[in-house]
Amino acid sequence: MFTVNAYAATSAAEPLTPTTVERRDVGPRDVLIEIRYAGICHSDIHHARGEWGPSVYPVVPGHEIAGIVTQVGPDVTKHAVGDRVGVGCLVGSCGACEPCRRGEEQYCLAGGVLTYGSVDADGTRTQGGYSTHVVVTEDFVVTIPEGIGLDEAAPLLCAGITTYSPLRRWGAGPGTRIAVVGLGGLGHMAVKLAHAMGAEVTVLSQSLKKREDGLRLGADHYHATSDPATFEQLAGAFDLVVNTVSARLDLDAYLSLLAVGGTMVNVGAPAEPLSLNVFSLLTRGRSVAGSLIGGIRETQEMLDFCAEHALGAEIEVIPAERINEAYERVLASDVRYRFVVDTTTLV
Amino acid sequence: MFTVNAYAATSAAEPLTPTTVERRDVGPRDVLIEIRYAGICHSDIHHARGEWGPSVYPVVPGHEIAGIVTQVGPDVTKHAVGDRVGVGCLVGSCGACEPCRRGEEQYCLAGGVLTYGSVDADGTRTQGGYSTHVVVTEDFVVTIPEGIGLDEAAPLLCAGITTYSPLRRWGAGPGTRIAVVGLGGLGHMAVKLAHAMGAEVTVLSQSLKKREDGLRLGADHYHATSDPATFEQLAGAFDLVVNTVSARLDLDAYLSLLAVGGTMVNVGAPAEPLSLNVFSLLTRGRSVAGSLIGGIRETQEMLDFCAEHALGAEIEVIPAERINEAYERVLASDVRYRFVVDTTTLV
Repeated sequence: MFTVNAYAATSAAEPLTPTTVERRDVGPRDVLIEIRYAGICHSDIHHARGEWGPSVYPVVPGHEIAGIVTQVGPDVTKHAVGDRVGVGCLVGSCGACEPCRRGEEQYCLAGGVLTYGSVDADGTRTQGGYSTHVVVTEDFVVTIPEGIGLDEAAPLLCAGITTYSPLRRWGAGPGTRIAVVGLGGLGHMAVKLAHAMGAEVTVLSQSLKKREDGLRLGADHYHATSDPATFEQLAGAFDLVVNTVSARLDLDAYLSLLAVGGTMVNVGAPAEPLSLNVFSLLTRGRSVAGSLIGGIRETQEMLDFCAEHALGAEIEVIPAERINEAYERVLASDVRYRFVVDTTTLV
Repeated sequence: MFTVNAYAATSAAEPLTPTTVERRDVGPRDVLIEIRYAGICHSDIHHARGEWGPSVYPVVPGHEIAGIVTQVGPDVTKHAVGDRVGVGCLVGSCGACEPCRRGEEQYCLAGGVLTYGSVDADGTRTQGGYSTHVVVTEDFVVTIPEGIGLDEAAPLLCAGITTYSPLRRWGAGPGTRIAVVGLGGLGHMAVKLAHAMGAEVTVLSQSLKKREDGLRLGADHYHATSDPATFEQLAGAFDLVVNTVSARLDLDAYLSLLAVGGTMVNVGAPAEPLSLNVFSLLTRGRSVAGSLIGGIRETQEMLDFCAEHALGAEIEVIPAERINEAYERVLASDVRYRFVVDTTTLV
């Protein structure tokens, strides 16, 4: 074991503070990563504040990790010292269940090991990326291709794969009409990715405030959902609606935007149940679906796709001491579009 | 125009009675069918009783029609006098919209022309199959292959295609695990079809009352949904849940039965909205979908599939004078599994 600097939540009510955490010694199949950047995901805030059930403190959030390999175990074959690598939401899974065997580790029937807040195979509790170093088994470490900066790559490890996976599953490409609900951390990646895949992209945002940005990021159209005319005008207009908003919304209204056979996929979920009129699905053969991040193989595929299309997240890099301020700004939707912690400031 | 015998509802409150209706003269692309059998679908009852919005009376229900061609227009190429044919829920559609061009006439954006209760292209109101004859444009007439009795074929035109279409869309076949919710007119066809496609079939019914039947029809397993242990025991067990029940149900409980990536498809819908916890979809990448009958090409494919597998509906044939009694028995779930009116009794 060795000690590394980190930023941690020590209770649900207090701000995050500088601290140290223990990392395990590098095992035969482990990779030691010197973290350079860690993105701030909304779920970091939920977890730090115990909003998704009780958290065990102290907890170091951060599951959008980009860094450099500084040591590898003797049996590691995928990565070498000096490699540019990333770690996302998962650092382990059973490897034996049907989803794991299919490469869908995020749906591991044993539950998987999350990058922070989980109990690892050795019984210790995982701690995330707001830290200078992390030790991860090579199977859960992906390669960040040359051509993407490590800072703009970090958010791809969660926001990128979370939107890439459903876009691929539902066939985004030339000729498909895709609506992205919400232009935040996830939404801005959905727009960039869907555009790069060749789809016709429409942003549905509460207001037109971020319209210029949306079009710059690759959207073809931009509509305000606060305007009731939007729902009339766009009835039946989309093959896929990617909902990146976790707030309660009128599911039937959004389903009415789908063409025959279309799907509305949710990558976030409100805490309370929604109301669903099954006729909304029946009359046009529509579906409503959910999608959770993506598997490791698909995460690598996504990174390769991003490099090929010179695609990264839109970020604001901050020093660790501004994490608490950033949390408040995330909650106020005051970020375009992802905060990334420069972890070299954790001194 | 010519006059034919029929059985019609004359108001929402009164029983159906014998009457006559007018049929249009056989046009260049029309087929005159001497109806032999007409299935009784639950939606006939809803429509006759004005339960799906106000109906225009008199209305002759019946959209599961099997009969013999007795005359064809000069431009008809698909059918000839003497052919065994069927007509389902649709007798027309715009032919120009995207779904129509794809052969999904049931999703016609112009609304399509239903076999009864719709306004036809010539401005007259369509009247259904509880009748001795019907005139239908050849595009909406399908061939009933030799090897299926006309009586057991009639219910295939609605109950058959309504379950066949989603089974095909979601890939029912060897290695897929399918649950059928409800063992009624639709459910018993879903069991027969899914079994013939090679899937592993489980019936989920309120009680075990029809268990013997379910197994005889092709189910591999049979569970009572009134037993809470069913939901624990079968958690994550199915690739596809076909819900044939229109009653309100606990969507989240049924979604918990789906494996990773699984779909619950509804072929009926309750009048009131259901509650949906989006986490039920998210955590296993699940979907909830709707499916409406099927297109004409797929209806023909279904009939050919049934002939190939020596498959028909399980029926109880009744004379027209017992239609009202049959309606009551349908409402009491007292039919195994479809009433079929012998329309030669309409004298």
